[in-house]
Amino acid sequence: MKVSILTIGDEILNGTTVDTNSAYMARNCIANGWEIEQVLSVSDTYNGIHSGLKILQENADVILITGGLGPTKDDITKQALADFFGVELVLNNAVYEKIAAYFSKGGQKQIDLNAKLAYLPKNAEVIDNERGTAQGMWFEFQNKIYISMPGVPHEMKHMLSNAILPKLKAKYHTQEISNFYIMCAGIGESAIYERIEDIENDFPSYIHLAYLPSLGHVKLRITCKHDKSETHKKTEALAFRDKIASRIKEHVYSFDEQKTLAAAVGDLLKDRNESIATAESCTGGYIAHLLTSISGSSAYFEGSVVAYSYNIKETLLDVKETTLNTVGAVSEETVKEMAAGLLYRMKTNYAIAVSGIAGPGGGTKDKPVGTVWIAVANSDKVIAKRFQLTKHRDYNIKISAHLALNMLRNFIVNH
Amino acid sequence: MKVSILTIGDEILNGTTVDTNSAYMARNCIANGWEIEQVLSVSDTYNGIHSGLKILQENADVILITGGLGPTKDDITKQALADFFGVELVLNNAVYEKIAAYFSKGGQKQIDLNAKLAYLPKNAEVIDNERGTAQGMWFEFQNKIYISMPGVPHEMKHMLSNAILPKLKAKYHTQEISNFYIMCAGIGESAIYERIEDIENDFPSYIHLAYLPSLGHVKLRITCKHDKSETHKKTEALAFRDKIASRIKEHVYSFDEQKTLAAAVGDLLKDRNESIATAESCTGGYIAHLLTSISGSSAYFEGSVVAYSYNIKETLLDVKETTLNTVGAVSEETVKEMAAGLLYRMKTNYAIAVSGIAGPGGGTKDKPVGTVWIAVANSDKVIAKRFQLTKHRDYNIKISAHLALNMLRNFIVNH
Repeated sequence: MKVSILTIGDEILNGTTVDTNSAYMARNCIANGWEIEQVLSVSDTYNGIHSGLKILQENADVILITGGLGPTKDDITKQALADFFGVELVLNNAVYEKIAAYFSKGGQKQIDLNAKLAYLPKNAEVIDNERGTAQGMWFEFQNKIYISMPGVPHEMKHMLSNAILPKLKAKYHTQEISNFYIMCAGIGESAIYERIEDIENDFPSYIHLAYLPSLGHVKLRITCKHDKSETHKKTEALAFRDKIASRIKEHVYSFDEQKTLAAAVGDLLKDRNESIATAESCTGGYIAHLLTSISGSSAYFEGSVVAYSYNIKETLLDVKETTLNTVGAVSEETVKEMAAGLLYRMKTNYAIAVSGIAGPGGGTKDKPVGTVWIAVANSDKVIAKRFQLTKHRDYNIKISAHLALNMLRNFIVNH
Repeated sequence: MKVSILTIGDEILNGTTVDTNSAYMARNCIANGWEIEQVLSVSDTYNGIHSGLKILQENADVILITGGLGPTKDDITKQALADFFGVELVLNNAVYEKIAAYFSKGGQKQIDLNAKLAYLPKNAEVIDNERGTAQGMWFEFQNKIYISMPGVPHEMKHMLSNAILPKLKAKYHTQEISNFYIMCAGIGESAIYERIEDIENDFPSYIHLAYLPSLGHVKLRITCKHDKSETHKKTEALAFRDKIASRIKEHVYSFDEQKTLAAAVGDLLKDRNESIATAESCTGGYIAHLLTSISGSSAYFEGSVVAYSYNIKETLLDVKETTLNTVGAVSEETVKEMAAGLLYRMKTNYAIAVSGIAGPGGGTKDKPVGTVWIAVANSDKVIAKRFQLTKHRDYNIKISAHLALNMLRNFIVNH
């Protein structure tokens, strides 16, 4: 089945807003085994929408449409849709009742103002918007399906997952698609490939592997196409997942594609009723930010010392002046002393300490930009490693943070 | 002049990568007074590219094309372009020399492998790629212009700004466009509108105002269309900029549209040779991260204490136990004591202290989720304010950080 996507809205067309909706819809279609044919953005004008529909219906079976349904704009989108299908706009009583109830606090004037939300193309099947007032619409026309959804991301996502995808799956008796994920950190795409190439070569034709890299982690997706009865194929895909995961074990932090590395570290600490603190130089608080982005992190995260200066490293982390003056701030000795000082001050079970040269300035011949030392420790043991990263400040900060969290994860699991 | 954009690549079409290139190109065209007609994504296949070109040439004068030019893919894109224009691919000697020089370290085999980068459609005018090996190409065909650029964002951006836009401006004798910017923090889009509505109403037809909001700041863009000789119109637009800026003075941190709030605070501190530290509870190190994202920040940023627990607030920031036990961690007294303790420990000129309930848990009737206290201080004075934000953790963290940095900015300027 071929799917095309139409996004309606001047904000997206003019680049004021980056279009993240299309990528979300596309990923979900791909995960169901459908192909994406074209993704098109047009202005929220009658002509823009009309010509967009004409273009996309040439090559697709299903056209997903987002945007242009707000109370101020919707007459244009709905009128363009109605004309495209050769029907009238008619009042939908059920939708009117819903809108009247929603706006009743504002009085009759508010209801009248929003009443046009209840006028829909005659051939529309209403898809309830559980998160807002602009309804979704499902159209079947000349053997193709057109689906209009609101452009507000959380409304669209909710509608897509809960109503649209199940309805499309029921309509198109495609093969079942099972997806399994491996979330990896502290390793790049090509290094993973080198280590698991032989396993991937053994994949049968109905199982595929995709590498989905982001800054700091790589998501592996194992997709298996099978008929409903062929559960053995699904079992086979799961066995491949486990084989790959055990090959790159020290980098695998979750099988849940929604889980961040910081959340996985948090889960480990919560399970063990243990705590963590960070001492950060070049990462400048970014590890603390990742950890505290997880709700409930106060159960295991005690705090951080961001020690950018020698002075703070000495006074708040008890790093020795002689260490800084002899081997420097970016050294094995310094990160180990930072970790020890932090454990003493914070009384946590674990400590992370990072010191490096994020760049673009500050590099030397022995310690070029991108040199980073990371230590992880508990009261018994400390491990430190040196990494050589890139020339790019933002990249170095974010990669260092992920390397440090993954080192801690392995430290917790293995000690 | 109407511009359409074609992005080529399965990563974007399938949603693996969010398309940020299109928004960047669109914003730059809009800033030059050109209209965006359509933005289309297609697969990197011959048919995908060919049909994309056919669609877009219907309604646009200029078609910007990105992607599909890597050494493994480029035969398809360039072949599709050549066929579309009805020409052959021919070896471009100047490009071949450049590639040979670039790959000479890898030997003749490397050069041969990459030689196809030097085969271009016969009608291509080469646009030098100063950041990589895939050349840009400019085509004129049937009164329209087609421009092919690499898909790697930093290569495309550099080529667009330095070669493509100047060439397009020279070709299309459009009106001059002057853009002026006001970067605002600590205030929302609608609050700005209410305060400056009367000024905007006085705008003549050739001056326009756009609100470009992001999380934590709002960019105002004042666009003036004028002929080259009409410098008085430009002067008039500048006067409007200054009038608006002085009306919302406490929120304006820069006239430079590239400047972040953290960078503006950094500039102030550098100019004065002064220093800053942060004490963060609910922001969890995010303010430190924003400040240290700026290269050279070690000149004025000393460090931070991320104090998530009562214990750390007491031991590292000298907050009194009685304060925490009587008025709680989210209170005026606590953030003032955090700021004072931080100044004492870090010996900086200024301190920021933040404590709040980021959510989604932890709210009470008196202090619901989204309650945030912020203090800014120097050795003479401390100011604290309470804010009531939202129910969303990520939003609360990021907005609090921007509110705090803007409070500090005003504190520095006014004291």
